[in-house]
Amino acid sequence: MDKCIAVIDTMFSRVDMGAVAYETLREELPDYKVERVTVPGAKDLPGAARRAIDYGCEGVITLGWIGKREADKITYLVSSMGLVMLGVLTGKIVIDVTVHEDEADNPKDLREIALDRARDHARNLAYMIKRPHDLVKRAGKGVRQGYPDAGPII
Amino acid sequence: MDKCIAVIDTMFSRVDMGAVAYETLREELPDYKVERVTVPGAKDLPGAARRAIDYGCEGVITLGWIGKREADKITYLVSSMGLVMLGVLTGKIVIDVTVHEDEADNPKDLREIALDRARDHARNLAYMIKRPHDLVKRAGKGVRQGYPDAGPII
Amino acid sequence: MDKCIAVIDTMFSRVDMGAVAYETLREELPDYKVERVTVPGAKDLPGAARRAIDYGCEGVITLGWIGKREADKITYLVSSMGLVMLGVLTGKIVIDVTVHEDEADNPKDLREIALDRARDHARNLAYMIKRPHDLVKRAGKGVRQGYPDAGPII
Amino acid sequence: MDKCIAVIDTMFSRVDMGAVAYETLREELPDYKVERVTVPGAKDLPGAARRAIDYGCEGVITLGWIGKREADKITYLVSSMGLVMLGVLTGKIVIDVTVHEDEADNPKDLREIALDRARDHARNLAYMIKRPHDLVKRAGKGVRQGYPDAGPII
Amino acid sequence: MDKCIAVIDTMFSRVDMGAVAYETLREELPDYKVERVTVPGAKDLPGAARRAIDYGCEGVITLGWIGKREADKITYLVSSMGLVMLGVLTGKIVIDVTVHEDEADNPKDLREIALDRARDHARNLAYMIKRPHDLVKRAGKGVRQGYPDAGPII
Repeated sequence: MDKCIAVIDTMFSRVDMGAVAYETLREELPDYKVERVTVPGAKDLPGAARRAIDYGCEGVITLGWIGKREADKITYLVSSMGLVMLGVLTGKIVIDVTVHEDEADNPKDLREIALDRARDHARNLAYMIKRPHDLVKRAGKGVRQGYPDAGPII
Repeated sequence: MDKCIAVIDTMFSRVDMGAVAYETLREELPDYKVERVTVPGAKDLPGAARRAIDYGCEGVITLGWIGKREADKITYLVSSMGLVMLGVLTGKIVIDVTVHEDEADNPKDLREIALDRARDHARNLAYMIKRPHDLVKRAGKGVRQGYPDAGPII
Repeated sequence: MDKCIAVIDTMFSRVDMGAVAYETLREELPDYKVERVTVPGAKDLPGAARRAIDYGCEGVITLGWIGKREADKITYLVSSMGLVMLGVLTGKIVIDVTVHEDEADNPKDLREIALDRARDHARNLAYMIKRPHDLVKRAGKGVRQGYPDAGPII
Repeated sequence: MDKCIAVIDTMFSRVDMGAVAYETLREELPDYKVERVTVPGAKDLPGAARRAIDYGCEGVITLGWIGKREADKITYLVSSMGLVMLGVLTGKIVIDVTVHEDEADNPKDLREIALDRARDHARNLAYMIKRPHDLVKRAGKGVRQGYPDAGPII
Repeated sequence: MDKCIAVIDTMFSRVDMGAVAYETLREELPDYKVERVTVPGAKDLPGAARRAIDYGCEGVITLGWIGKREADKITYLVSSMGLVMLGVLTGKIVIDVTVHEDEADNPKDLREIALDRARDHARNLAYMIKRPHDLVKRAGKGVRQGYPDAGPII
């Protein structure tokens, strides 16, 4: 089988972050097969990521969208915990990209945040696979995804 | 053994979501045996889902009902965490449907939310089993279960 | 060995819920050995439940008592999470009965809640072992333990 | 190897709870080797407890100290969750003793709470190893560690 | 292979804590290879720590940086939970160093806290590897990293 990575997003999301992550990874990792999977919501991401790893993928990027209610924050906790545990149990690279609806009042701003974050983290995944040691140069630089970089405190 | 999926709901719930999920899955997956199981409350769902997977089911839909107290939110967290970990550990499809009593002031509204959500997620489970790649078409569309779709941000 | 189930309660509790669960299970499951174990507090329940399962028990009922402070809510979360994970990892029936001190202002009321809940959940455990399919009849009926049933929303 | 139990405490703590637990266990379990280990803070306790179990210890008592900030409550959650999961995964006795800095305004009071709780839980550990069935007599008695007993509700 | 330990930090951090931890460990453990790894953010630390352990490292120090929003606190919980579970599952030493942006109003103060904490915990890791029993002398001494020691309550 070709080397493979997976992009997993949700129907719940109001922005097609998966498409952006997919295109970015196709460009950045031309010798990888990029699997694209969509699940209903954020709590379905960890199980789907597990199936992608079982299928043979070296890395997974998940794209979650979290509502504004208190219960939604718990959903975020549960989904991210599952993704972290998947990484702990398998040692595979699992990048958890999450957008929270309360990050912006304006839907257009939220859309920009979501698309930027998906693109930036897809690039991060490509780096972690191709040139992991290069990331050390960016250690402590206050890099952000979906916002301008905060920069280092000098 | 026939191919099988499981519907697991609770006595605690004030709406018979399990019946709706059961009927929907019988229609959508006519060649599957649909196991129906009822447990006392939401914290009993993950263990019962594990037993359904041990029995041979490919997928499980659980239907939880969560009260209004602070302790109930913790119950939601714990139940959903167990279901997510079950998916991470087994790779099986586990759809966690949860209704929160504070989603509506009016019991009738709550009933509608619960029945719609159970039906919509049962269809999602059927899609994930029969035509998983079709869901990509709905990525980022702001699909909701139990509420009108939020729609994509354009 | 005889078939066995376990009742595990705490010294921290202010009501002897374990005695009620024990008597109820002796009546409901006369052909089972009922192991009774007491541990200091709620965080000791999951480990003791694991030992009861290792000993050969098919099912476990734990009876926890949670104080009013913020830290106590975290204790509830941690204890229940351990019990849910035990069910996920072993597939055994683990019924987590918890009483929160802030459920009633009056100690006598709290006592009634605790005793009713222990008895009702011990019966639930017996049902889950003897006649699991009977519980489907009670799905969505708003059944409560320690309070009057909320009933179904019609 | 001799039978062994472990006492694990922290440098972060402002009271030497480990010394009290160690002395108590030496008295209560004279035929056991008592390993004493100190780690930086509460999040280091579960890993150290795992190493003590790998070393051959039958039981572990950990002594954590938690600050007043919101982030410290999360630290408590994470540390206790790790200790509970260790018990669930290994079946060994793991007693998690925790003191919260917001339990008393006065440092001297906090010191008394810490020392009493360490001593009382060390005795609990000894009981759980030597005479586990004796603890049933204290079920539901409202026993406290670090405070006067709340007593049973009669 | 040489004996090895790993330093894992993030691009998200606004201070290069990894460099300080790396230099400290090079001095304190001259016969160890010190692997340095950088990942995007705190939720990527547990998976990277797992890979460092698979690679053969005896111990890992992770350096996380947590923002001020409510969702960031959940990120802290999830990241630390993964690191604790890694220690529970592998028995390896995993030191989780975290700086919270709300620990100081002034960026310069935050920088001092971060650098001191990274250095102090790197020394703790070296102690835990070279002279674990020496740490017992500091039990209950109110030792802090990034702040002045609180000292023991006498």
